[in-house]
Amino acid sequence: MKTAIATVSLSGSLDEKLDAIASAGFSGVELFDGDLVASFHRPETVATMIQQRGLQLYLYQPLRDIEGWDADEFRRAHDRAQRKLEIAARLGAPTVLVCSNAAPHAIADDSRSASQLAKLGDTAAQFDIRIAYEALAWGSHVNTWEHAWSLVQQSGHPNVGLCVDSFHLFARSPLVPDLSHVPGDRIFYYQIADAYWRNRDYLSWSRHERLFPGQGQFPIAELTSEVLNAGYTGPLSIEVFNDLFRETDPGRTSRDALRGLRYLEGQLLASQSLPNAESLSRDGDSIALAHAHPAEEWDFVEIATNQPDEINRTLRQLGFTHCGKHRHKTAELWTQQDVRIVIVEGSATAEVTGFGVKVLDLDRLEQRLDLMLAPNLHRITPPGDEPLIGVKSPSGIGLYFSKMSDTRSPAWVEEFSSPHGYIPSDIGIIAIDHLSINEPPETFHEAILFFRATAALEPESEVEIPSESGIVRSVALHSRLGDTRLVLNVAPASHAESIPQPEPNHVAFHVRDIVSTVSQYCRNGGKLVPLPPNYYDDLEARMPELAAERDTLEQLSIMCAAESGGLVLHAYTEAVGGVFFELIERRGTLTGYGASDSSVRRAAQRVNRAQI
Amino acid sequence: MKTAIATVSLSGSLDEKLDAIASAGFSGVELFDGDLVASFHRPETVATMIQQRGLQLYLYQPLRDIEGWDADEFRRAHDRAQRKLEIAARLGAPTVLVCSNAAPHAIADDSRSASQLAKLGDTAAQFDIRIAYEALAWGSHVNTWEHAWSLVQQSGHPNVGLCVDSFHLFARSPLVPDLSHVPGDRIFYYQIADAYWRNRDYLSWSRHERLFPGQGQFPIAELTSEVLNAGYTGPLSIEVFNDLFRETDPGRTSRDALRGLRYLEGQLLASQSLPNAESLSRDGDSIALAHAHPAEEWDFVEIATNQPDEINRTLRQLGFTHCGKHRHKTAELWTQQDVRIVIVEGSATAEVTGFGVKVLDLDRLEQRLDLMLAPNLHRITPPGDEPLIGVKSPSGIGLYFSKMSDTRSPAWVEEFSSPHGYIPSDIGIIAIDHLSINEPPETFHEAILFFRATAALEPESEVEIPSESGIVRSVALHSRLGDTRLVLNVAPASHAESIPQPEPNHVAFHVRDIVSTVSQYCRNGGKLVPLPPNYYDDLEARMPELAAERDTLEQLSIMCAAESGGLVLHAYTEAVGGVFFELIERRGTLTGYGASDSSVRRAAQRVNRAQI
Repeated sequence: MKTAIATVSLSGSLDEKLDAIASAGFSGVELFDGDLVASFHRPETVATMIQQRGLQLYLYQPLRDIEGWDADEFRRAHDRAQRKLEIAARLGAPTVLVCSNAAPHAIADDSRSASQLAKLGDTAAQFDIRIAYEALAWGSHVNTWEHAWSLVQQSGHPNVGLCVDSFHLFARSPLVPDLSHVPGDRIFYYQIADAYWRNRDYLSWSRHERLFPGQGQFPIAELTSEVLNAGYTGPLSIEVFNDLFRETDPGRTSRDALRGLRYLEGQLLASQSLPNAESLSRDGDSIALAHAHPAEEWDFVEIATNQPDEINRTLRQLGFTHCGKHRHKTAELWTQQDVRIVIVEGSATAEVTGFGVKVLDLDRLEQRLDLMLAPNLHRITPPGDEPLIGVKSPSGIGLYFSKMSDTRSPAWVEEFSSPHGYIPSDIGIIAIDHLSINEPPETFHEAILFFRATAALEPESEVEIPSESGIVRSVALHSRLGDTRLVLNVAPASHAESIPQPEPNHVAFHVRDIVSTVSQYCRNGGKLVPLPPNYYDDLEARMPELAAERDTLEQLSIMCAAESGGLVLHAYTEAVGGVFFELIERRGTLTGYGASDSSVRRAAQRVNRAQI
Repeated sequence: MKTAIATVSLSGSLDEKLDAIASAGFSGVELFDGDLVASFHRPETVATMIQQRGLQLYLYQPLRDIEGWDADEFRRAHDRAQRKLEIAARLGAPTVLVCSNAAPHAIADDSRSASQLAKLGDTAAQFDIRIAYEALAWGSHVNTWEHAWSLVQQSGHPNVGLCVDSFHLFARSPLVPDLSHVPGDRIFYYQIADAYWRNRDYLSWSRHERLFPGQGQFPIAELTSEVLNAGYTGPLSIEVFNDLFRETDPGRTSRDALRGLRYLEGQLLASQSLPNAESLSRDGDSIALAHAHPAEEWDFVEIATNQPDEINRTLRQLGFTHCGKHRHKTAELWTQQDVRIVIVEGSATAEVTGFGVKVLDLDRLEQRLDLMLAPNLHRITPPGDEPLIGVKSPSGIGLYFSKMSDTRSPAWVEEFSSPHGYIPSDIGIIAIDHLSINEPPETFHEAILFFRATAALEPESEVEIPSESGIVRSVALHSRLGDTRLVLNVAPASHAESIPQPEPNHVAFHVRDIVSTVSQYCRNGGKLVPLPPNYYDDLEARMPELAAERDTLEQLSIMCAAESGGLVLHAYTEAVGGVFFELIERRGTLTGYGASDSSVRRAAQRVNRAQI
């Protein structure tokens, strides 16, 4: 299957865009007229540049406000169109996009518009070019795909067909249309953009907030399935306007976009709705394994530091057992119940640098990760060691895959040997509840798609958390069984020295009884982040049923948030460099992260950092 | 008149917020409950902290979703309210805000809601506290001020009154309400936020995009006039939720906010709609001079560099005459017709560092600029020199005021003397058309208000310009006669090394005949930024009537944009360090800046920079 992206989706000059698109692995492009007009390369040269990079030019986008005019204005519009069609011919573009008229004084007259489209079709035919007619969501009169399709039919011209655009279609209606009555060869082009559902004017939403497939909430797979089942054989073509993507490196953005299409293909293959059995990718077989390696369980969290004394002390206070050094690598393992923390070499400040998940099957995993454009973290597996396949997330966090084992403890644990033997010192930590990592704003959407495409972690709704330094945007992702949870936070941009910097990443441990665990941690010498008494006044006002527990919770700095009919009780350790730990007890809810406590927690951590 | 700001409008801890609010010069605060809950100071201490800073606590905001419940839920809500009223009493808050119920399962029953408000009034009365009831724009049933006022009346409780909030009111209707039938003493509180008109869901719009008065498009002065004429005597209180303001230094944000209120007061005084004649400011008399010193004309543009050879050469090529050195300062003057460029000392790279405007009267100007919280640029005027009053814009550009003179050339020009005598070498530049400067995103709204409040430059609509590095946001401001024009641009954030950095500032010169001026500039050895031939193909398609001029325009690198029924023809010089110049001829339009050419121009400048 053919893949394309509109040049307007990327930053940079036309040369830089074409280089980026070709390097990522697309088969072709949509050329935005503005990119041509701003280029010093003449149309014939641009055609050659596209060919030399192994790309196809599928579409040229120079025309809007062409139909729905009175005779005079149509004559002017048609003259303009003719000049642009000449350029399209010089470019070798087979198809030219025409958007429905969005001018306030456009005329609402279907038969007039249809005959003007037919006239345009005549002119296009002279150049052997097809016109793909698209309903803009904010078109003055034609703003639904059904209306555009009706005009295409009325025009009765073989060179006039339909352009289906997922954004314009879903912006006006969340329902997936039935395209079974549209002949596939009348769909001249299919443009794909995902987005979050918004209640915002169509134009602003469209120009600023489009996303690549798999990053938003639109039912892109279902629409694509309709388009393909109708018999469409053209490219899946990404047309995304997004403020951030326009500001980021075009190479990175192109790979992100193609990952979105490959993820989409995986969804189609998984739902068996790819009719033509032609794959997007070089290797149809292995792409068919998309979703074949979902994260099933946490395996471990990796923390890097070259001054491990403090993190080791904190882990000991948290009841972890030191299980010794790795037999080949510079790595130390700490465990408690089903939690494994691996300390590796790094810089002075302790940092969460990676995590491992268990999958049922490693077969062809590497090929699939490669197709998902996930940068490989090359690790040589010494003979006898368990294979560990790793990729690097957009912000540089390692994501490692290992095979589920029959035993509770994974086989790789045997590679670590303790000189002291194991002396369990549990304080009630039973599992990793979630891992919370910070993402730079420019890789936030990319990271969501990355973890979906590589480990089938599914995003929950975005949450906004006010903090002393601004709004923190947060999206949690979870595995299909719900117990591998990753929280991605985007810290606000800091425009002042006086305001606090982004918080460290953290690991949240699931505990059975938080009062017991926190008490033991404190007896072990562990330190918590103290919370303000006002928080507990507020807690009593919010949850009078907890009044009897108030003193205990306050003494132990335990927070409490209502979540989905249950309670999340949680406490935070003092940070060790760039890491801190959360202890979390869930009463009657398996979802939620206590987001309503985040503002107070962050403020308390800031006070705590200033004091230590 | 009393002034206040909600703590939620600012970044930082409660201590930092109160310090910032007091330093800016507000008379009091609204305390947001989240700021109290996150603070380690107990309510009594917070009361003392507020007093010690010379502030009043006017309002405490802890209550929402209180009325419109069934009996059970109201009992729980009332218990919660009672605890919060106890805290309000410990804080010494005279008034507590209650927002209309926004819960999906709230009950639509006015008499029930009114009696629940009355019950809350009874409880509040025990603490000698007033309840200010506010309709949220997204309230489930109560979402207009009229409905809230009706419930206040129905409650019949002396401790229950109305809170008027400009955002909630204008979000639902752009019309200024008639408040003449509302007794002023029943308006318990008045919250002010400005905003741009948006077609966006109320909640997102409210939480992210509120602005300080004078920064948006709401008719704040008219509403405030209604509120004051109704007899309201409480504070003008700013409650703004804005993503950027939450990320910036609270001291800076507080000054920006208070400038907004003082600008508002100036508007009220100018329209003679401030009934109580009590001024916001320390000096009612001089604040009454707001708008008394509008910019009437350009005076000069200041460029700083310590390597002036290149800029001097460019000015000579542009037909400027060197008028010599200043008799006291290190400054050189270049003139042509009504354009004056002053070159002062600076760093190696030439930069636009300031500009001067002429006003009719300098009387009490300094006091007014001080009231507008404009940082003074202290300049000592040597005896015999014309006084030059200067302030520094948010991004550090100097804004200088001088007195209009009867002669065309201002009196200060006499302070410069040429060793060579004046040899005019005009090439047809007749005036400064506009000055275009870059603002960092975090001071964009502040800068708009700053130039309104200091020089009465009025903003036009915001324009978005796609560029190779992202969307450039641009707002032009103009003087009341329209011929002093300042364009503020916010360059996109750069997230990649590969994409171009922000452009330099530039000065646009108005010319009578661009072909003649550009030809002479080139004959003088001046260099223009070359434009791509594709631009001229597009120009012919857009404007076939210019076909005959195409070759001339193309040879001279002149761009052409349709603006308001006329044409803007313009060309760009190569940059000299951080400055470039635009030559602009206006045919049949005095407005517009050729924004539609900006994308191509920026791309061409990038190519030009890479080549030189």
